[in-house]
Amino acid sequence: MGKVVQNIARADPAVIDGLAAAGVATVHEAQGRIGLLAHFMRPIYPGARIAGSAVTISSPPGDNWMLHVAIEQLKDGDILVLAPTSPCFDGYFGDLLATSAMARGCRGLVIDAGVRDVRDLTQMGFPVWSKAVFAQGTIKATLGSVNVPIVCAGAAIEAGDVIVADDDGVCVVKRADAAAVLEKAQAREAAEEGKRKRLAAGELGLDIYDMRGKLAAMGLTYE
Amino acid sequence: MGKVVQNIARADPAVIDGLAAAGVATVHEAQGRIGLLAHFMRPIYPGARIAGSAVTISSPPGDNWMLHVAIEQLKDGDILVLAPTSPCFDGYFGDLLATSAMARGCRGLVIDAGVRDVRDLTQMGFPVWSKAVFAQGTIKATLGSVNVPIVCAGAAIEAGDVIVADDDGVCVVKRADAAAVLEKAQAREAAEEGKRKRLAAGELGLDIYDMRGKLAAMGLTYE
Amino acid sequence: MGKVVQNIARADPAVIDGLAAAGVATVHEAQGRIGLLAHFMRPIYPGARIAGSAVTISSPPGDNWMLHVAIEQLKDGDILVLAPTSPCFDGYFGDLLATSAMARGCRGLVIDAGVRDVRDLTQMGFPVWSKAVFAQGTIKATLGSVNVPIVCAGAAIEAGDVIVADDDGVCVVKRADAAAVLEKAQAREAAEEGKRKRLAAGELGLDIYDMRGKLAAMGLTYE
Amino acid sequence: MGKVVQNIARADPAVIDGLAAAGVATVHEAQGRIGLLAHFMRPIYPGARIAGSAVTISSPPGDNWMLHVAIEQLKDGDILVLAPTSPCFDGYFGDLLATSAMARGCRGLVIDAGVRDVRDLTQMGFPVWSKAVFAQGTIKATLGSVNVPIVCAGAAIEAGDVIVADDDGVCVVKRADAAAVLEKAQAREAAEEGKRKRLAAGELGLDIYDMRGKLAAMGLTYE
Amino acid sequence: MGKVVQNIARADPAVIDGLAAAGVATVHEAQGRIGLLAHFMRPIYPGARIAGSAVTISSPPGDNWMLHVAIEQLKDGDILVLAPTSPCFDGYFGDLLATSAMARGCRGLVIDAGVRDVRDLTQMGFPVWSKAVFAQGTIKATLGSVNVPIVCAGAAIEAGDVIVADDDGVCVVKRADAAAVLEKAQAREAAEEGKRKRLAAGELGLDIYDMRGKLAAMGLTYE
Amino acid sequence: MGKVVQNIARADPAVIDGLAAAGVATVHEAQGRIGLLAHFMRPIYPGARIAGSAVTISSPPGDNWMLHVAIEQLKDGDILVLAPTSPCFDGYFGDLLATSAMARGCRGLVIDAGVRDVRDLTQMGFPVWSKAVFAQGTIKATLGSVNVPIVCAGAAIEAGDVIVADDDGVCVVKRADAAAVLEKAQAREAAEEGKRKRLAAGELGLDIYDMRGKLAAMGLTYE
Repeated sequence: MGKVVQNIARADPAVIDGLAAAGVATVHEAQGRIGLLAHFMRPIYPGARIAGSAVTISSPPGDNWMLHVAIEQLKDGDILVLAPTSPCFDGYFGDLLATSAMARGCRGLVIDAGVRDVRDLTQMGFPVWSKAVFAQGTIKATLGSVNVPIVCAGAAIEAGDVIVADDDGVCVVKRADAAAVLEKAQAREAAEEGKRKRLAAGELGLDIYDMRGKLAAMGLTYE
Repeated sequence: MGKVVQNIARADPAVIDGLAAAGVATVHEAQGRIGLLAHFMRPIYPGARIAGSAVTISSPPGDNWMLHVAIEQLKDGDILVLAPTSPCFDGYFGDLLATSAMARGCRGLVIDAGVRDVRDLTQMGFPVWSKAVFAQGTIKATLGSVNVPIVCAGAAIEAGDVIVADDDGVCVVKRADAAAVLEKAQAREAAEEGKRKRLAAGELGLDIYDMRGKLAAMGLTYE
Repeated sequence: MGKVVQNIARADPAVIDGLAAAGVATVHEAQGRIGLLAHFMRPIYPGARIAGSAVTISSPPGDNWMLHVAIEQLKDGDILVLAPTSPCFDGYFGDLLATSAMARGCRGLVIDAGVRDVRDLTQMGFPVWSKAVFAQGTIKATLGSVNVPIVCAGAAIEAGDVIVADDDGVCVVKRADAAAVLEKAQAREAAEEGKRKRLAAGELGLDIYDMRGKLAAMGLTYE
Repeated sequence: MGKVVQNIARADPAVIDGLAAAGVATVHEAQGRIGLLAHFMRPIYPGARIAGSAVTISSPPGDNWMLHVAIEQLKDGDILVLAPTSPCFDGYFGDLLATSAMARGCRGLVIDAGVRDVRDLTQMGFPVWSKAVFAQGTIKATLGSVNVPIVCAGAAIEAGDVIVADDDGVCVVKRADAAAVLEKAQAREAAEEGKRKRLAAGELGLDIYDMRGKLAAMGLTYE
Repeated sequence: MGKVVQNIARADPAVIDGLAAAGVATVHEAQGRIGLLAHFMRPIYPGARIAGSAVTISSPPGDNWMLHVAIEQLKDGDILVLAPTSPCFDGYFGDLLATSAMARGCRGLVIDAGVRDVRDLTQMGFPVWSKAVFAQGTIKATLGSVNVPIVCAGAAIEAGDVIVADDDGVCVVKRADAAAVLEKAQAREAAEEGKRKRLAAGELGLDIYDMRGKLAAMGLTYE
Repeated sequence: MGKVVQNIARADPAVIDGLAAAGVATVHEAQGRIGLLAHFMRPIYPGARIAGSAVTISSPPGDNWMLHVAIEQLKDGDILVLAPTSPCFDGYFGDLLATSAMARGCRGLVIDAGVRDVRDLTQMGFPVWSKAVFAQGTIKATLGSVNVPIVCAGAAIEAGDVIVADDDGVCVVKRADAAAVLEKAQAREAAEEGKRKRLAAGELGLDIYDMRGKLAAMGLTYE
């Protein structure tokens, strides 16, 4: 503990933006149904959809000192990702830190703990995905680390990995996989477009996906 | 497992629509305070209030194959109701399935598991009550059953029962009881109307409901 | 149990309104990071920010009789605060009780249990912070007490204490401390205003708060 | 509510005892992986393994009056099964009720709520499966029903169904299916006996169940 | 914060020991069904039954410094009672602190957080009631307070109050009420003794408590 | 998915056994308070204390096929560590799999899901740390992977890492760090021994650790 990794590699900005456009559910499917953070990670307001490079933070419970350290490491388009070293619901982050992070080009915060000042954050348009909204204050007494590998809400995340977040939750894409995942995500979206039209016209998935034979073979009976 | 019941009886459409207008809290009271699903069943967006006939689905955890089978069984005004066979938060349902269900006249989904693509579902106006919003994908590998009796979020539900859902949660009304429950619900609403006016004028429930004597008899003291 | 304390002292209305303007997070910090109710206490709709004097209710689980008794004790600007005597999610409160409470000048409800008719309450502009939204009805069979000390969502509250509630949760301020806490809250807000501007201009908290030396002394290393 | 069904049918005592001997996991598998109560239903002490006919109780939250009514309905070999009408952790049952139930031949209690006096119950050898151990007392103010269909910890149970409970949890077998399920359970146990010996000798399940080909066909790769 | 109250009043040792003998469920009933800590407070091993005077601790999350301060305040027969200032599961207490506390005459620990070294504590016979068993270490960086009023697991506790703890959980008795509560608890036990014999002989609670008339009057029907 | 890594490196057996002797709390402290699995991971019976090399399993929810594949990869002294790809409480593992694993020299199972046949497992002396005990059966339909990096109960684990588990929970030690961590753990134990004796003799931690000055400097006051 007590380490800041300063120069981290990031994915291609165009790829990152493409992943944001695809959204969490599509990205998650495109990379083989991995990388989701736990379902208790919820947005503080609906409608945000972002992607960015993870600046990771490992913090003691109830101590938000490392957020100040991490903000200096932000580059335009980054997302702060904080995991406490033991379970914590405290409000590590509020409108002052958001003001600072936005000034550095930060796109949002993903935190396996609490957040506060959510009315201000909503008005500022600074999106947060968190485990809790809780006004509980924190201290600045103990070191943590920045840009080290963390486990956040059940997902292993390294600095520079791509974070995608929207109303469906949060997904991480390994930096090295980002371009390939985007390609698959876009292929998936294209394929879905045709299906969506057929389904809207009343065709059944049973027929579009040719499921009837397999269901019968497995023993499905109709009464 | 592996059974689809095709012809189910449904309640009178006018009764169903009447129950929707009454809403969950009133319907629940009118039928003797039974039939509520657990409080963790929450709408993905506020403001929807629907009622419809249950098309029930018993699905394995993490397997949404039976949703395709169930959609074929939908008639106009139905509501899909899914219970997994063991606890599950996965996102069984998204915008493609919603497109298909809407094309068949489906009014909404009640699912004791997760849902995804909630931004799309909100834009489409397809309401869902679920235990979680979670992008986690599912597979299509194992049979379940459609239109069999299920327990969903703690409530026993049979195909064709009337489901009422709004911002207060979800309630099930046995098909055979629907007309009688509607009658009581409407009587209850009429009775409440007069009380609402008196309460708004500043009269106290203590007086309207004549509670002072009983409270005193039970020993309530004022200091 | 079975006691109603009728004449309770309240804080200065101007102080109460000042605490509402400061908001939960600031008030909590200003009084030394104490007094927060648990993070599971959430508003039924976003945007409300209120403060008022607590009229406290200790109720049996699933029994809302004492709410009628408490409403008679309300004075303009009060907030109802209910704690059940064992854990309960039932919907103790709905639109009729809200109509009555509003007619008596009540500003909102804080309840460590459930609430219902939330669509109506939202339309009426009557804010509630609760542990659950649940249509489950309650009975009127057993006495509780009004304006006695309670523990609500983990916080000890006495009648006449000041309750502050907004999107960040709920905080209690001891009546005797209210004026002093307001003073500190306003000082805090003034101090933050200058920092907000500097942070928005891109200055770092590391520099504004002069943290670099202390971090280095504690052993933080940069790679 | 407020109904006691007095004459209920029960399964063959020999079948019931056979199901107890088979245990929960085997019975659950034998009947097609259905009937389990939720995993939060835990025994108050390890080592008990029982089966019996369900005497069902639907009770208001925090009100244990119906337990007295239900005890009169017990026959030798029965098991009390209680579900509250809304979520509750209160201690409905203690050593006095256990003394009474044992005197009537009751084999145990399954309760989707709390229990108390667990040290006494352990010394008496009266097993309980519950959601909580909690000393919280209850009242006797409102009617419930006995021997009506209930949903207990997520499982639909009717009076006279066979309850099987051991350290793995609780399972319900429909009365009409009990004999057939026992037959399958015993066949399953016999089949397992041979496999157990082969596995103990170091043979692999991969070979005993002939899985290698199927795994390879599905694409499993070894590095 | 940062205060140690040194001279606290304690209840009569004979009364305290009497309350231990009565146990949690009886004491809770005897004082009017109040004072229980939440049901998630569980003993680390079964069979302990203690009572003692509370030495209270308010600690920051993840910081166990104040335990050392509190141990100096212990007198023979005391019980340590710790509440963190925000929710925490960390292991504040292990075998070294237990060794120290036992040397000062401490009878046990009640902690709304975690504990570790539970195998050692079990062998030492030092009982703990906690929310979690968790090896997570804590720091010593921030002040808290000793012998101030706290809310622990939902119960308001003052230094010198009597804590009673056994397999059913934990209950607090106000110091000033201890003698009166003991008297009622013993009366209750005496009354129960006779009932226990009658129930064991097969008499029904319905008859012993003369419930049949009241049940019929409320409308209970037998089929 | 669908990959088995066959040749994994393991730590020195003597180091592994040394870590088992030190136990979870000491190992966790010795490596800088990292590596703990979540506190909900509990042993199925008290008293076991093991360490071994992780054979990791990433499994679909409700599908235990990969356990058979993993058992073939076991070497003497290994521990199976399973993480489902989405939250699951099903009983993946019972007495037959334990028989097979024991025959291959396996020391225990750590599973972020459920386990069953716990009475048999207890009698066999096969320890399991799990999130739940649940008889719910699983299927064998979908591939997962063996000996790939996983996140289990919040901790990142690679095949061959050392798992330490006892009544305090479960901790992972990176394979490369194992020897160094053992050294620190043993130094820690030696240092504690002397303190234990002084504490047992009644000396205070305040004096042994020389805390009084620092507490006073931070502002702790005695009343």
